Amino acid sequence: MAGETVTIVEYLYKRLYQLGIRSVHGLPGDYNLVALDALPAAGLQWVGNCNELNAGYAADGYARIKGISALITTFGVGELSALAAVAGSYSEHVPVVHIVGVPSTIAQKKGALLHHTLGNGDFSVFANMSRHISEVLVSITDPNIAAREIDRALTACFVAARPVYIGLPTDMVLRKIPANGLDTPLDLALHPNDPETEADAIQSITEIIYAANNAVILVDACAIRHRVIDEVNELIDKTQLPTFVTPMSKGAVDETHPRFGGVYVGDVSRPDVKAVIEAADLVLSIGALKSDFNSGGFTYRTTTKHTIELHSDHTKIGFAMYPCISMKYVLQKLLGTLDFQKIRHTESAKSIPPTLENKEAPESTGDEITHSWFWPHIGNWLQENDVVITETGTANFGIVETRFPKGVTAISQVLWGSIGYSVGACQGAALAAKETNPSRRVILFVGDGSFQLTFQEISTMIRHKLTPIIVLINNDGYTIERMIHGADAGYNDIQPWRHTNVLQTLGAKEGEYKNYVVKTRKEVDDLFKKGNEFSNANVIQLVELFMPKMDAPRALKITGKMSEKLNAKMEV
Amino acid sequence: MAGETVTIVEYLYKRLYQLGIRSVHGLPGDYNLVALDALPAAGLQWVGNCNELNAGYAADGYARIKGISALITTFGVGELSALAAVAGSYSEHVPVVHIVGVPSTIAQKKGALLHHTLGNGDFSVFANMSRHISEVLVSITDPNIAAREIDRALTACFVAARPVYIGLPTDMVLRKIPANGLDTPLDLALHPNDPETEADAIQSITEIIYAANNAVILVDACAIRHRVIDEVNELIDKTQLPTFVTPMSKGAVDETHPRFGGVYVGDVSRPDVKAVIEAADLVLSIGALKSDFNSGGFTYRTTTKHTIELHSDHTKIGFAMYPCISMKYVLQKLLGTLDFQKIRHTESAKSIPPTLENKEAPESTGDEITHSWFWPHIGNWLQENDVVITETGTANFGIVETRFPKGVTAISQVLWGSIGYSVGACQGAALAAKETNPSRRVILFVGDGSFQLTFQEISTMIRHKLTPIIVLINNDGYTIERMIHGADAGYNDIQPWRHTNVLQTLGAKEGEYKNYVVKTRKEVDDLFKKGNEFSNANVIQLVELFMPKMDAPRALKITGKMSEKLNAKMEV
Repeated sequence: MAGETVTIVEYLYKRLYQLGIRSVHGLPGDYNLVALDALPAAGLQWVGNCNELNAGYAADGYARIKGISALITTFGVGELSALAAVAGSYSEHVPVVHIVGVPSTIAQKKGALLHHTLGNGDFSVFANMSRHISEVLVSITDPNIAAREIDRALTACFVAARPVYIGLPTDMVLRKIPANGLDTPLDLALHPNDPETEADAIQSITEIIYAANNAVILVDACAIRHRVIDEVNELIDKTQLPTFVTPMSKGAVDETHPRFGGVYVGDVSRPDVKAVIEAADLVLSIGALKSDFNSGGFTYRTTTKHTIELHSDHTKIGFAMYPCISMKYVLQKLLGTLDFQKIRHTESAKSIPPTLENKEAPESTGDEITHSWFWPHIGNWLQENDVVITETGTANFGIVETRFPKGVTAISQVLWGSIGYSVGACQGAALAAKETNPSRRVILFVGDGSFQLTFQEISTMIRHKLTPIIVLINNDGYTIERMIHGADAGYNDIQPWRHTNVLQTLGAKEGEYKNYVVKTRKEVDDLFKKGNEFSNANVIQLVELFMPKMDAPRALKITGKMSEKLNAKMEV
Repeated sequence: MAGETVTIVEYLYKRLYQLGIRSVHGLPGDYNLVALDALPAAGLQWVGNCNELNAGYAADGYARIKGISALITTFGVGELSALAAVAGSYSEHVPVVHIVGVPSTIAQKKGALLHHTLGNGDFSVFANMSRHISEVLVSITDPNIAAREIDRALTACFVAARPVYIGLPTDMVLRKIPANGLDTPLDLALHPNDPETEADAIQSITEIIYAANNAVILVDACAIRHRVIDEVNELIDKTQLPTFVTPMSKGAVDETHPRFGGVYVGDVSRPDVKAVIEAADLVLSIGALKSDFNSGGFTYRTTTKHTIELHSDHTKIGFAMYPCISMKYVLQKLLGTLDFQKIRHTESAKSIPPTLENKEAPESTGDEITHSWFWPHIGNWLQENDVVITETGTANFGIVETRFPKGVTAISQVLWGSIGYSVGACQGAALAAKETNPSRRVILFVGDGSFQLTFQEISTMIRHKLTPIIVLINNDGYTIERMIHGADAGYNDIQPWRHTNVLQTLGAKEGEYKNYVVKTRKEVDDLFKKGNEFSNANVIQLVELFMPKMDAPRALKITGKMSEKLNAKMEV
């Protein structure tokens, strides 16, 4: 209604609600308390994390399920504690709205020597530290443009799929602004491609696809983050081309699809997968993110000449670059214009490897739970639509060997690789899953080393009655680091904890949690059995699963040695 | 010996050793592993913290006992996780050498898409985020100037009493450089004052001191951080002037000294303390740091005209500024030249308040453990040379009411005020105390809210067999925030934990830890009794001490309301 007003913070929160956000992560601090008061009226739940780094990881996890998330911290101490998480969201293309409660504009103008400052009157220093890990950075200092600035930040966050920073001074929170802006939804559409350039690209791509004898599709992380998964799945169905993913895009496509071929990681790939991809006369690469750990240490043996790369912000056909031609429109056009009869796959049909099976490795014998046995094996227990979170460490490399049922969402941080990420992300993902589809299970695989960084966030899961299954791999320290350097070094050891005490210590009540200890393959089989109480409990559960200290997934063993070599390489 | 060489990392570590550092805090990460290999040979112990933020807090605590400390993290993920701690050290003038293992110079030149990057080939972005919280920032990229750069950084760290950043690429770690630089100790002397300017200042100060009838000395935080405590104590003894401290300088001077008058916090001071300071005709202020929480919300009623301010980097006499005249030399000159017979203290002698007594507040009755009862009371139990760490929260405000025995070191973060700081700081301080004087007790007072942010660092204490007494004030959430805003708001609540499970969960072994629960004044008296087993146990101990949710120290009640008002104040 014309003339109606809302406070600036109400405006902001109602926009978050319109974007689908229902819970907001973060911690209270005196510069954000008044802003927190307004959450319930806007339909937003306050999560209240244990610390800001964890809150940032949780917001990242929540965004990976719901499409976007929000994080509220306080000036200086709070926001800086979250930086490593926000940088991770930036690196991995995850849209998180970071709202920072900052001192009043009056105190800022005076350069007052407030707590949570560096004591030098500089109030811009912390925002500037966030500048390079934020798609857009706004400071709300003028009610007349507050709505516009908020809209600009939120739109950028969603469209670019990256964090934005909104500084909200205490004296701006309750300022009144017109409410009518809220009647117009945010324009979240991608900028259209230039029609002529796009047409040229489509024509080239079409000709190359028709000419190919054994093309393959390689789907990577940015296909998920920049929201072209529906288009990709339609493309697979219509072209019937063999399709592969990377470690960062595990779960992007249906792994039970007959044309699914496995995970490509350069030289670290399974040999049969590697053979097909590298023999292809065309790689249609969608959303590639060729980081070291995502590409087997830069060992792709594909050629630029025979690759079409579709990205969110450009297209590359062989050596020809098409700037600002984004993949979403290209894929939609291709789906509408390609004559799928003309696509040849005689060669590719022959060469597609048997779909990755959930079978233990042939060399795997004995009773110890080894990685080569565990990861394929556990796939048989997973259910459709599970959310599977793996920690940077052995789990991230092991999960590559697990074939997912349909609809599984995988969450990991292969590029940013911050250890401890997964426990926070699990809290956010579990909350998001509960909000959208409470029947989805959330399963976390985390090592005992990483666990120590952030494990208190399990307290937040308990508080919000979230019921993930936490599989804690106890392998006596930082095994991923041992694989890179210092196999027996003391710095890769950790203090041993009593893991089965954790849930109770963090406040889980009798009857609302369960602990398990699993040391043999038989115990794994007994526990991870479809349909039993463990598999579908409605309480939080922690499984302490013992693995040998020096065992690691195949991919990690190779990648670790590659990293050590790269680190040590000297020019002289 | 001429011709001998050392690796760059050996050079760095030997310098740290020369500065008195014996333990290095941090976490392993693949870009720093090779550097960690070299620690033992240099006589340095690796601490191995649970996460980088905690490691940063621990390094800060260690530096406050030993004078300087070192922190090693890995590129991106690790260093950013520590930023809030390093910023705190910057804000609070604590010298911490932050060594970051970064990718090789070759990978950097190539702009390789490595893990722990933003994926954009920019390797300078994280160092730039540290720039404004580092006195000096160096990147070791050329062996020819490596020693000079290391020396420059370490000297700046010590002299300025602020963090420095040393980026150490993996391919530089083992490069050989000449060893002979190590034979020349680092020059840690302050830059001398300009003799003429200093002489003029000394003359003015002398005249003003002689002319005063009731001068007082006000010692603040920078007197500790910039190392003039010996001079200050000599000045008190020789002048016999009434001496006061601030919340940030608690413990700086001997509180059993007959001329010690108490803690000045502007309008938040005890009325008798406030009366003396504000009636003085001269305030000799040493190392002032007038932040909001350190000055009763900027309510000093002293006048510039009647104040002499001595700082590390300037001197101010009334309204006259003397840039670059540093207090250490000024104090030394004054001690050598003042005629102490000429100092009048008839008025001040009359007006000095009875020294802060460790007596419960007169209004305090009942059985509940209230702040007004607890903090004066606990002073009777403290011993000479205790290290007392208080968390940002009720403890930081309560400790102002505790009279310390001689030689107590107090550690807190009144300016930076990051909640969770104290648990990390306790680990570092306890380790430093063990290295220098194992008979010193280390006592931590932390609230249940703050505890949740960083409590896993207790694991590191257990691992290193440190034996602090951890007094966990259970008052059901973030009481400091309740005092500012949202007394009953859900966002100031926390998940209740089973605190007496914590030590065991984090791996303390039977016989190596003790837990206590204390709910009444009698139970406090029984436990906190001089000379009993609890008071001098050689195991880690945790006391869960219950206090009412809405009770707070007097100073916090007033300061909280001041903060809320300041935050809400609008110009219109």
